Amino acid sequence: MADVTGRIAAFAQKARALDVPGDVLDVVRLSLFDWATVAWAGRDEPVTRIVRGAEEAPGGVAQASAIGLATGMPARAAAMINGTAGHALDYDDTHFAHIGHVSTVIMPAALAAAERGGWSGDQMLRAALGGAEASIRTGMWLGRSHYEAGFHQTSTAGVFGAVLAAAGPDCTDPERLAQALALAASRASGMKAQFGTMAKPYHAGMAAAAGIEVMTLAARGMEANPAALDGPFGFGATHAGAGDLSAFDVDGWLFPQISHKLYACCHGTHAAIEALSELQGAEGIDRVEIAVHPRWLDVCDIPRPKTRLEAKFSLTLTGAMALKGLPLTTDMAFEEGVILDAALTDLRDRVVVRGDAGLADTAAQVALHAAGGVQERFHDLARPAAFDMRVRKVREKSRALIGEAMSDRLWNAVNADGGPDIAALTKTLRGA
Amino acid sequence: MADVTGRIAAFAQKARALDVPGDVLDVVRLSLFDWATVAWAGRDEPVTRIVRGAEEAPGGVAQASAIGLATGMPARAAAMINGTAGHALDYDDTHFAHIGHVSTVIMPAALAAAERGGWSGDQMLRAALGGAEASIRTGMWLGRSHYEAGFHQTSTAGVFGAVLAAAGPDCTDPERLAQALALAASRASGMKAQFGTMAKPYHAGMAAAAGIEVMTLAARGMEANPAALDGPFGFGATHAGAGDLSAFDVDGWLFPQISHKLYACCHGTHAAIEALSELQGAEGIDRVEIAVHPRWLDVCDIPRPKTRLEAKFSLTLTGAMALKGLPLTTDMAFEEGVILDAALTDLRDRVVVRGDAGLADTAAQVALHAAGGVQERFHDLARPAAFDMRVRKVREKSRALIGEAMSDRLWNAVNADGGPDIAALTKTLRGA
Repeated sequence: MADVTGRIAAFAQKARALDVPGDVLDVVRLSLFDWATVAWAGRDEPVTRIVRGAEEAPGGVAQASAIGLATGMPARAAAMINGTAGHALDYDDTHFAHIGHVSTVIMPAALAAAERGGWSGDQMLRAALGGAEASIRTGMWLGRSHYEAGFHQTSTAGVFGAVLAAAGPDCTDPERLAQALALAASRASGMKAQFGTMAKPYHAGMAAAAGIEVMTLAARGMEANPAALDGPFGFGATHAGAGDLSAFDVDGWLFPQISHKLYACCHGTHAAIEALSELQGAEGIDRVEIAVHPRWLDVCDIPRPKTRLEAKFSLTLTGAMALKGLPLTTDMAFEEGVILDAALTDLRDRVVVRGDAGLADTAAQVALHAAGGVQERFHDLARPAAFDMRVRKVREKSRALIGEAMSDRLWNAVNADGGPDIAALTKTLRGA
Repeated sequence: MADVTGRIAAFAQKARALDVPGDVLDVVRLSLFDWATVAWAGRDEPVTRIVRGAEEAPGGVAQASAIGLATGMPARAAAMINGTAGHALDYDDTHFAHIGHVSTVIMPAALAAAERGGWSGDQMLRAALGGAEASIRTGMWLGRSHYEAGFHQTSTAGVFGAVLAAAGPDCTDPERLAQALALAASRASGMKAQFGTMAKPYHAGMAAAAGIEVMTLAARGMEANPAALDGPFGFGATHAGAGDLSAFDVDGWLFPQISHKLYACCHGTHAAIEALSELQGAEGIDRVEIAVHPRWLDVCDIPRPKTRLEAKFSLTLTGAMALKGLPLTTDMAFEEGVILDAALTDLRDRVVVRGDAGLADTAAQVALHAAGGVQERFHDLARPAAFDMRVRKVREKSRALIGEAMSDRLWNAVNADGGPDIAALTKTLRGA
């Protein structure tokens, strides 16, 4: 077995082992819930409607469920629709080491394969964990060079994780899994040129669907070059992959570092929002300083935003909103009536933003100068909060985004005893 | 409209115009026949069985026909199966400027879209012409740098042609077509690492199916970055594309230069076979000289082959067979009983092969020293023979490969008055 396909494939077995810590699986559940939330919220986005319509027309055997579609679909098609829906709002989880969105590729592949294969909720959860971990490690193996060359790691690294998610308990032969991964090298695609267009969420759907497709082919005996990732003319060599094998040597699980996107604004504002949220309610504010990595100054430093879109790219405004304890979880938070409110803009104009190349691009350092003195806070998104805090914030986001009733249905389905209740979850996502 | 997507899209309109020369469309018909021949011949290859089985299981609406399958399939699935089948034997046509196989991507996309859309045979033929020309020009635009970096032009350039083939008369809006091409940039993939494995023919199926998929999405309103081919982080920039815009400025049609593969042996032997075939029947042969580009000496210069596989990579033996007028069109031609025959091996041992860097890698120079003096011949595969000669040879190959009855049915369906008889052609390919 070639080196890299074998090393990726190993995460399948690792995720099926009895010694997977419960708190790791808890994060997978939380991410499944978060994915289900944003996918449901994105069900009527134009890109989701288009992909769903295109897949619904030819139809096929009802193997799996697609967001917002009462009738079942072939597993490949369901994964395509659900992956697209989950990324339509760009409000799904991110892993900074992977440099990409994880769950919107992995969960659709695992869920569709689970329905088709009649897996238990626990089997599905472990398939998702193996797939998520595999996509993160593959993303790290490809490295920053791959991302900087212009590739969209969400799909290019994601498809390899989708293979493990689609394999689950159905494929326990590491050689066969390695063949599927080798075949996936021919299906890994997506460039940053598509950022800002409907093609970006489509990339997530493509990767999820391709995971189902190549695993199905490999299970039927299809063979590819086991060195299709790391050999001559392989995926790494042809796609500016750094080929950093140490990605596979990090012990334990990296998936729990996943960052759930909690605010409906530019990711570059989130660390400052977290830091300033802790200072909420401060009185007599004189001045607020936000330091972030300089790359964000070109992205989200609109000092006096006039529109909803501008507001989402404003560190000064979102920082002031966080200090005031205003909600930031939905687009509604950035209505003009809110963002141009005089008390808020007064505070906004006391916020000063500066670049600090010493900070990680996931971090913010803030200082609040007020009557009572100076308070400082630091937050790094790459260091997740305590699990109960993460649960609270993800549930808050979910309720704000899709309403309490729907959110609670998804929560209960995901958190059923013994593993997610796949029937209840998919029924809910079908809109039934 | 961005430069390259617009330039590619323009071939759709050019192929629909009344002034397309009849002899250009004749070559498209011949290529359709050749593709149908090799696809039928490849219908039971393991890779075809696997892909057909994987697509048949989820089924769907009967929009189009797949090789060897009685029931209809969704157009995307049919294109996937038929593209794979056509490349399974690696016996399908090649375009040297494109650096790839053309018809096995284009014909399946055009045929599936034609069946789904109820196009006439003439409409289908023109969709195929536009698609084939588009894939050749895109292959030239990407250039040798792209191929040498490790990409498989058959699929990477082919998918853009498949978009035009899938559009046909259904999409007459150049802007919409350009959007589909931009979306195809996210679907263009395939590396040379997969050569020699089942993934190579799968690449052809992938590209054909992706053409159907992205055209369907674009027709429903999907939008991508119009500069996804030639802009920053676009397909060319991220995939070692030379970006040679002169590819689009060559007047006329390049598709008629297509090279039909006529012999069931290594492509590097074909120019010499053609040249020596013209000297067939010479008496009292003393010595035969074959000069080819030096790159072939590493590939197909096994001087005394002992097995069928070795025979297919032997310039000396295939040259001797051509001189003796032996058939070379099927695997059967290389049975041990034939290749070890004493009279043949005597002639084989009189053949001398040498490299000549002054020759194109599509050319051979031969010299026959015999009792009556020296005769010389030159053949370059990149310069197609007269059309009637091409027809004769392609029909000969077809009959040898799939039998006279089947070959004639395909021939008659393709050459019906007013354009191919799509119903008769697809019925035949279904095996009905």
